[in-house]
Amino acid sequence: MLYEIVMSIYIPRGYRFSGVYCGLKLPELGQFDLSLIVSDIPAVAAGVFTPNLVCGAPVQVDRSRVPGEGFRAVVANSRCANACTGERGIRDAEEMAALASQAVGGNTRQGLVMSTGVIGTVLPMDKIRDGIAKAVENLSDSESGFINAARGIMTTDTKEKYVTKLLTLGSGEVVVLAGICKGAAMIAPQLATMLAVIVTDAALKPDVAQDMLRSVAEESFNCISVEGHTSTSDTLLLLANGAAKPVPLSGVDLELFGKVLRELCIELAVKIPDDGEGVSHLVTVEIEGCKTRDDAKKIARKVAEDVLVKTAICGADPNWGRIVSASGTAGVGYDPKKVSLRLNGFELFKNGEPIPFDKKTVSDSIRNNRATHILLIFGEGKNGIRFWTTDLTTEYVRLNSDYTT
Amino acid sequence: MLYEIVMSIYIPRGYRFSGVYCGLKLPELGQFDLSLIVSDIPAVAAGVFTPNLVCGAPVQVDRSRVPGEGFRAVVANSRCANACTGERGIRDAEEMAALASQAVGGNTRQGLVMSTGVIGTVLPMDKIRDGIAKAVENLSDSESGFINAARGIMTTDTKEKYVTKLLTLGSGEVVVLAGICKGAAMIAPQLATMLAVIVTDAALKPDVAQDMLRSVAEESFNCISVEGHTSTSDTLLLLANGAAKPVPLSGVDLELFGKVLRELCIELAVKIPDDGEGVSHLVTVEIEGCKTRDDAKKIARKVAEDVLVKTAICGADPNWGRIVSASGTAGVGYDPKKVSLRLNGFELFKNGEPIPFDKKTVSDSIRNNRATHILLIFGEGKNGIRFWTTDLTTEYVRLNSDYTT
Repeated sequence: MLYEIVMSIYIPRGYRFSGVYCGLKLPELGQFDLSLIVSDIPAVAAGVFTPNLVCGAPVQVDRSRVPGEGFRAVVANSRCANACTGERGIRDAEEMAALASQAVGGNTRQGLVMSTGVIGTVLPMDKIRDGIAKAVENLSDSESGFINAARGIMTTDTKEKYVTKLLTLGSGEVVVLAGICKGAAMIAPQLATMLAVIVTDAALKPDVAQDMLRSVAEESFNCISVEGHTSTSDTLLLLANGAAKPVPLSGVDLELFGKVLRELCIELAVKIPDDGEGVSHLVTVEIEGCKTRDDAKKIARKVAEDVLVKTAICGADPNWGRIVSASGTAGVGYDPKKVSLRLNGFELFKNGEPIPFDKKTVSDSIRNNRATHILLIFGEGKNGIRFWTTDLTTEYVRLNSDYTT
Repeated sequence: MLYEIVMSIYIPRGYRFSGVYCGLKLPELGQFDLSLIVSDIPAVAAGVFTPNLVCGAPVQVDRSRVPGEGFRAVVANSRCANACTGERGIRDAEEMAALASQAVGGNTRQGLVMSTGVIGTVLPMDKIRDGIAKAVENLSDSESGFINAARGIMTTDTKEKYVTKLLTLGSGEVVVLAGICKGAAMIAPQLATMLAVIVTDAALKPDVAQDMLRSVAEESFNCISVEGHTSTSDTLLLLANGAAKPVPLSGVDLELFGKVLRELCIELAVKIPDDGEGVSHLVTVEIEGCKTRDDAKKIARKVAEDVLVKTAICGADPNWGRIVSASGTAGVGYDPKKVSLRLNGFELFKNGEPIPFDKKTVSDSIRNNRATHILLIFGEGKNGIRFWTTDLTTEYVRLNSDYTT
């Protein structure tokens, strides 16, 4: 669609961005490996982090600081996750955050930090220090600065991922939301992660920002799965600096902001499975008619992470049996006689029984479209959910089993 | 080891077996597709079935009959699972069980039935009827009859699976346990299943048999996973006819019988992932030091079903990060600083931190052995578990995404 091709990038006021190369990745790749986002005025920050008990040092540092206010910088690196690195890891993460914040006039605790890449190795702090200095020199409020920041956090992502949105408040003032993220795809020899930062020039109270971010994450970043492995470093941060309007949003404006933030997060999140390793289909699993939203999510996740469902879609196989069977093992009670299934709009299963369909037509519709839509309808209530995943290809297995010393 | 090569097959008294071809599979495959097991005297039966809400008609019929006594026959077919087939499916399953039982002099409710194969299509009952008649003609108490019964339930299994064991009671009498099973590997266009039947000439009370079977299944068939998909038709049956000794086992004899049954079930169960589609490694996930056995099982299952762990083993990658990270997402609380990991006996991770190791040596040990051993040690308590799974290969994905009209 045309509007996607010419889509504008909006940069929120009071922020500068950069992405640089500092020697973490192999030089011949020609890729950035460190990103810096600076707020020129102190910003409120909120965060949502991996539930994994084994979590990286940056997650531990950020988690102790947000929600809060007064933040000046977010620094992120790829190639080394600074996870399973003990006390040394915590000291390194704190130094990274402090260097970034101090370089733009803040104090040691006004920075936040994210790392992604190999786990179990310590950060090469000499390179990180040089990298932060270089990133400070390159800070810019231009579109290219913003895109460079999206590039510095990439690992196996094949393209940078960002979404920006405008919102007009009731008073006529315009605020901007801009987000970057990187993929959840994992890579040998250790693992990568999902990182996302959203910045806005609206003002939010810390607790309001935190509640909103957690609730929005539930419907976006927590509704995607590539292989069902929750990494040690997943981090989603929101910065709100009030540069467009210093009064914290409330009432209808706040509600509207929440809606736009939700849209932005869903668009960002869906880019992750869409760019998964070796992926040939982006699969939307839509659930309707459950008793609770939590029931719907359990079923959606079970179907989305089912290896047999994912391989079937890779092979353009309209295998309703695997989908219906997977839904029955989610630990959610329902009446199997009230289940119906549509695949790419074709009804394959109705009220608990298969109905005749033309296999070739449905198979062709899977094969000829990158997007696959699975709609499972239950007869238990009025709650539903959308969940996004990938197919499972031989290329994915090849990428993830390739051992390099 | 020598004793495996010359291992004897023991046939329990009072049973006859057969496996025949009745036209369900393609004739050019030259494979059996229907099995019959008959007890010449009425037997006690117990059963454990799939927890999937979407379950096949044979599961529904058997579940309503066991635990119970007076059973004369178990009939099983491959190629068609008789699942998602409505009222017609129930009638067909009941007729199958009745035909098998009546053919050997029993009544309509003295039979049990199992089906595996494609779901959503009805049984071709004319072929089934002819098949049962043919199977009755071929019944035999010989080793070959027993092996033929193991062959008739195969789907994508590459070899028949059986284990037999002798047990000497305190009185000096000998009883025999003999089990057959088929694999949990799934196949296009729909899905297959895990089926197992164990017969013994010992006598057991119905409720005792049921409790014992459920508890043994917890440590055997419920501790294996190929791809984490619980099929619609999983069935495990135990028949005890008392032909060796009509008095139900009790006391020390019963306890000993339970141990032998447990061993037999573990040996049978492990044959399933060992023969999984496209598998190049049989992986044992052993967990120690958890607060409860249930905690250990949750962690074991999470590690065993983690796609990244499975692809790493396929690639001979000693990727401790993926294993440690997967264990952190099982929903079980523990202190990450007390976790240690050994892979094929090599210590890779100790008390929450990686320790240096020679990657090539560990990688070679994975590459050069079909069996891989993952030992995760926690510091929370004294409970553990063993769980078996497979690696994930490109061949597996190819087999399961291959769409054939």
